[in-house]
Amino acid sequence: MTPRSCLTVILAAGEGTRMKSSLPKVLHNIAGLPIVAHVAKAVHGAGVRDIALVVGKGGDQVEAAVRSIVSNVNVHEQTERLGTAHAVLAARDSIARGYDDILVVFGDTPLIETAALDQARAKLADGADVVVMGFRPAVPNGYGRLIEQDGRLIAIREEKDASEAEKKIGFCNGGLMALRGQSALALLDKITNDNANSEFYLTDVVEIANADGKSVVAIEISPDNVIGINTRVELAEAEAIWQTRKRRDTMLAGVTMQAPETVFFAHDTLVEADAILEPNIIFGPGVSIASGAVIHAFSYFEGAKIGANANVGPFARLRPGADLAAKSKVGNFVEVKNAKVGVGAKVNHLTYIGDAIVGPAANIGAGAITCNYDGYNKHLTEIGANVFIGSNSSLVAPVSIGDNAYVASGSVITANVPADALAFGRARQEVKEGRAVQLRARYAAQKLAKKAD
Amino acid sequence: MTPRSCLTVILAAGEGTRMKSSLPKVLHNIAGLPIVAHVAKAVHGAGVRDIALVVGKGGDQVEAAVRSIVSNVNVHEQTERLGTAHAVLAARDSIARGYDDILVVFGDTPLIETAALDQARAKLADGADVVVMGFRPAVPNGYGRLIEQDGRLIAIREEKDASEAEKKIGFCNGGLMALRGQSALALLDKITNDNANSEFYLTDVVEIANADGKSVVAIEISPDNVIGINTRVELAEAEAIWQTRKRRDTMLAGVTMQAPETVFFAHDTLVEADAILEPNIIFGPGVSIASGAVIHAFSYFEGAKIGANANVGPFARLRPGADLAAKSKVGNFVEVKNAKVGVGAKVNHLTYIGDAIVGPAANIGAGAITCNYDGYNKHLTEIGANVFIGSNSSLVAPVSIGDNAYVASGSVITANVPADALAFGRARQEVKEGRAVQLRARYAAQKLAKKAD
Amino acid sequence: MTPRSCLTVILAAGEGTRMKSSLPKVLHNIAGLPIVAHVAKAVHGAGVRDIALVVGKGGDQVEAAVRSIVSNVNVHEQTERLGTAHAVLAARDSIARGYDDILVVFGDTPLIETAALDQARAKLADGADVVVMGFRPAVPNGYGRLIEQDGRLIAIREEKDASEAEKKIGFCNGGLMALRGQSALALLDKITNDNANSEFYLTDVVEIANADGKSVVAIEISPDNVIGINTRVELAEAEAIWQTRKRRDTMLAGVTMQAPETVFFAHDTLVEADAILEPNIIFGPGVSIASGAVIHAFSYFEGAKIGANANVGPFARLRPGADLAAKSKVGNFVEVKNAKVGVGAKVNHLTYIGDAIVGPAANIGAGAITCNYDGYNKHLTEIGANVFIGSNSSLVAPVSIGDNAYVASGSVITANVPADALAFGRARQEVKEGRAVQLRARYAAQKLAKKAD
Repeated sequence: MTPRSCLTVILAAGEGTRMKSSLPKVLHNIAGLPIVAHVAKAVHGAGVRDIALVVGKGGDQVEAAVRSIVSNVNVHEQTERLGTAHAVLAARDSIARGYDDILVVFGDTPLIETAALDQARAKLADGADVVVMGFRPAVPNGYGRLIEQDGRLIAIREEKDASEAEKKIGFCNGGLMALRGQSALALLDKITNDNANSEFYLTDVVEIANADGKSVVAIEISPDNVIGINTRVELAEAEAIWQTRKRRDTMLAGVTMQAPETVFFAHDTLVEADAILEPNIIFGPGVSIASGAVIHAFSYFEGAKIGANANVGPFARLRPGADLAAKSKVGNFVEVKNAKVGVGAKVNHLTYIGDAIVGPAANIGAGAITCNYDGYNKHLTEIGANVFIGSNSSLVAPVSIGDNAYVASGSVITANVPADALAFGRARQEVKEGRAVQLRARYAAQKLAKKAD
Repeated sequence: MTPRSCLTVILAAGEGTRMKSSLPKVLHNIAGLPIVAHVAKAVHGAGVRDIALVVGKGGDQVEAAVRSIVSNVNVHEQTERLGTAHAVLAARDSIARGYDDILVVFGDTPLIETAALDQARAKLADGADVVVMGFRPAVPNGYGRLIEQDGRLIAIREEKDASEAEKKIGFCNGGLMALRGQSALALLDKITNDNANSEFYLTDVVEIANADGKSVVAIEISPDNVIGINTRVELAEAEAIWQTRKRRDTMLAGVTMQAPETVFFAHDTLVEADAILEPNIIFGPGVSIASGAVIHAFSYFEGAKIGANANVGPFARLRPGADLAAKSKVGNFVEVKNAKVGVGAKVNHLTYIGDAIVGPAANIGAGAITCNYDGYNKHLTEIGANVFIGSNSSLVAPVSIGDNAYVASGSVITANVPADALAFGRARQEVKEGRAVQLRARYAAQKLAKKAD
Repeated sequence: MTPRSCLTVILAAGEGTRMKSSLPKVLHNIAGLPIVAHVAKAVHGAGVRDIALVVGKGGDQVEAAVRSIVSNVNVHEQTERLGTAHAVLAARDSIARGYDDILVVFGDTPLIETAALDQARAKLADGADVVVMGFRPAVPNGYGRLIEQDGRLIAIREEKDASEAEKKIGFCNGGLMALRGQSALALLDKITNDNANSEFYLTDVVEIANADGKSVVAIEISPDNVIGINTRVELAEAEAIWQTRKRRDTMLAGVTMQAPETVFFAHDTLVEADAILEPNIIFGPGVSIASGAVIHAFSYFEGAKIGANANVGPFARLRPGADLAAKSKVGNFVEVKNAKVGVGAKVNHLTYIGDAIVGPAANIGAGAITCNYDGYNKHLTEIGANVFIGSNSSLVAPVSIGDNAYVASGSVITANVPADALAFGRARQEVKEGRAVQLRARYAAQKLAKKAD
């Protein structure tokens, strides 16, 4: 059987003034990914590859966000804001191309899940013409109620028009819909703006389809699937739900998290089973953690790869291109950027490793720094296997330290060090007996003088 | 119309033994401000400038905390603890000065809001003689119930004296009150201690005023407004409510917070719209953040000013006097104290900038440190525009680095560097071929010897 | 009266496959201590010193975890998994030794409290033969109901066998039990596997004992006491409950915590009254904090001792052996390991103090580092009283700095410094006028060349 073709219409023209932001509402992030891209991800997960994107202002950025997930996107501009049905019909040209299924979703409901879309399409496959996605909120007040009869959805009743009996119905309209492609346009075109606000409401399709003798049904989806974002408070609430889902999935897959509520994942974070995540870890995009790795508290990662049984943090900052091999160790107050850290290598404290290769089993002392930037260019530091870099050393790139070499503490290294060599670059110590006493006397006098000023 | 004059009596004599603290209860902090100062802030917000402060021990500190908000404070000492009415009457001299309105609030209910006080005073302006602030707790058990009849408050019934019908009343006594100034003292003086505990209860004023034919009414305020602090658990709960309010207001004003529950504001924190706050940020007092600034996770600020579109953290510590200009950048493991960082300047990693001026577009390398302290005095470091400070350098203050100067990595700079000059202060590197092998052999032998000990 | 002898049977043979872990379920940690050791701790708290530990695979590690709390442990292997009664009878030899009381607890219910065990044993002392520990969950669905009559427990009814009336009972079987030692084995031996799963159920002992005319009673314990761990989600939930209990106890004892939900204690953390804990503090095992100490946010401690009125953090990392004396200060981005920091000494920023003794009132400058490791051995750094260590200095151990000595900023110190002496080890500064301009021109040219590549 040929799979049914499907178009998803994403309505993303809302201005979102309550966000009080110069950024279009659907481009605000959840887990480091724009809201509208989350919607596209759910759509993509349902096997849908064709998207009709209805945009208002800022359409280019919105399109780019959707294209980062699905490539086949037709953009339709909705110049006036005349209601949801009007918005859907802005995508008329796309809808008219003859799909089996049409899904209508909102660009500002980032928590919609693939399962909900699959469920709606299954009803179309079973013969429904219109499928409304309903949900059961804790308190139904304010929502349109779904009036069902013998398994059919006969009306969506707005709160203000509902009878007392209807108000007791807990099953509410989530706004999302699936339509049989063949009849979709005909039904949509029958919607009028003959109402108090003079708007074209998509929900009217229910009564129109019923009057036409079409099959109209409702399905129940999880309440969080229909949460829309209108303020930054709601954005934070949606982020919290997303994080809760991800934390739960991660733990059930075998990752230990002492305080899951303090770990913030990005949309694409990968953590293998039997890794351990301590409290207070922040993931930016592009991070993977292999099995057995232990991540200590107060760690902050972006674009980093952490190998099996590696030991990272606390207070570690991994920036893009950080690639830690198995059993390596990155300790406190260490920043790693665009650098490979070899198997079993140790970078334990107060160090910046940038634009570098650290060989296997190398040991980088506390306070050692790769001086990768000269004010204009970034340069590479190569550190061989088993190298020992003494504390507080400065490695001025480009520079290479051969295998098994030893750099004395406090050295400034500006030239390559051959394998097996000992390098140092530091002044000889001098001691002036009794002079600390004199120095202190002088400083104390200055202090008094200052106060006297 | 002349505005009505008003005195607020703040009862702050409670010892707070359950705090188990040497500090008086009302001086414990919420959002970095003493509890009693929060009360004073709400009072000040309601336009009230005269405060009668009733204190017990530690009165001087309590007075100072209140004076930090409102200057016109009369302090009254309550030497014995004989009930709430007795406490109010300790302020007899202040009350007798002839105010239109008398507000009675508690020094240990820091979440009282200006709106509640305004609402109470509005009732006085409408002719009420006594206004009781009531609230509807989730579970009323244990609270005194407000018995109303035809819009009048006729009694406050303690739980133990309440009938079954009265126990079903959900409207409870919050303790706070407003009294018409003209009749306040006369009513208060009629309160007796003819009860089981031999205490003078302020709540008795309700029945006394009713018996006198006065107008007594109750208003409903939000339950959190009456939360009193008796233990550090309750202190933490009140802090949580305060933070929740502030986070919500901040987000609704256009600030993005990925995880608001992990950001802790101070009482005076200012954050402009379209700033972004990542998780885990701690604000001490005196911090302002301009629009477009991005604050990364694990940042800790006090007394700092962050300019527009600045980029700060993760792992940044800004101490008092840190003043970051627009588009400046302060990165990980950086501490800034009493220092200006110029427009577009970068202090990216592992650096301490103290008592310094960093010029526009200057770049401070990783591990560079301003050595501002000689053990007695703090000295200034001046860094000009476009200066490049190489990594791991030490700038020994007082010292000045001229515009466009360049300091080589690993240098110790003890004398001024002119504009456009290159400065270095580091030893020449030496390399001993093959010596790392010998060195390791020696160390390994020492290790063996140690073990043999 | 001789105290009653007691054996506790801990059932710890479950495999815990839903943990998806190579580690046995009961060895996963809560507050840094294995689950099963928490159970042993509650048992130990109830004065019970004899434990019969029923294990499956991984028994050695489980035994070690229990022995870390209680030394008198008999291990019994349960080779087949034939039900809870079968598991208890694996400990037949221990039970047969003639104890007054037998407690049966599970190795995977770490939140059981001593009070619950005491309460059960008190019932045995009062003459009960079988005591079942029941609880009242928010929703009883799914649990076995406790059917009582005239104060006696007459049956445990599984949900599927319960009548509608019985389903309304909110009092449920928590699984834990206490048995009179004299009759325990006789009752347990009467349990059959004549049921759908062919398992021997411990709960059957209730009906058997009733049929024998024994005294069977139920006690009510707090619902969290019976929470079992089967997944890492449940592990995190139990951790959260443990932490909530500990935070509450800590605050009620007089410790201020601005945001208790962000502080994670270990099982053995000690914090004295009037200490202050800011948000986001992580405790590993073995930490004590004395009165008046202030711990700032983003601090991470293990095996550390913090003296009275010490001031630590933010961003402090104390590792095992860190011992901070009274009024000492450890500031941001500082790591202390195996080191004493003297009274009033200051280690304010960006420093690693490892294997060291820092004298009273010493001041360690920003970026100073003890170079304690040569790649093979760890060596000691001794810093005397009132010593000043300039910023960015490297102290190459073994090395000793005498009292009142002064080390200049940026020095590498490789030899001992006598008391009162001034030491430096840094190159003389050189300045090349105008050379920064040339240098920049060269770098800019290189950059262009790079781009052209």
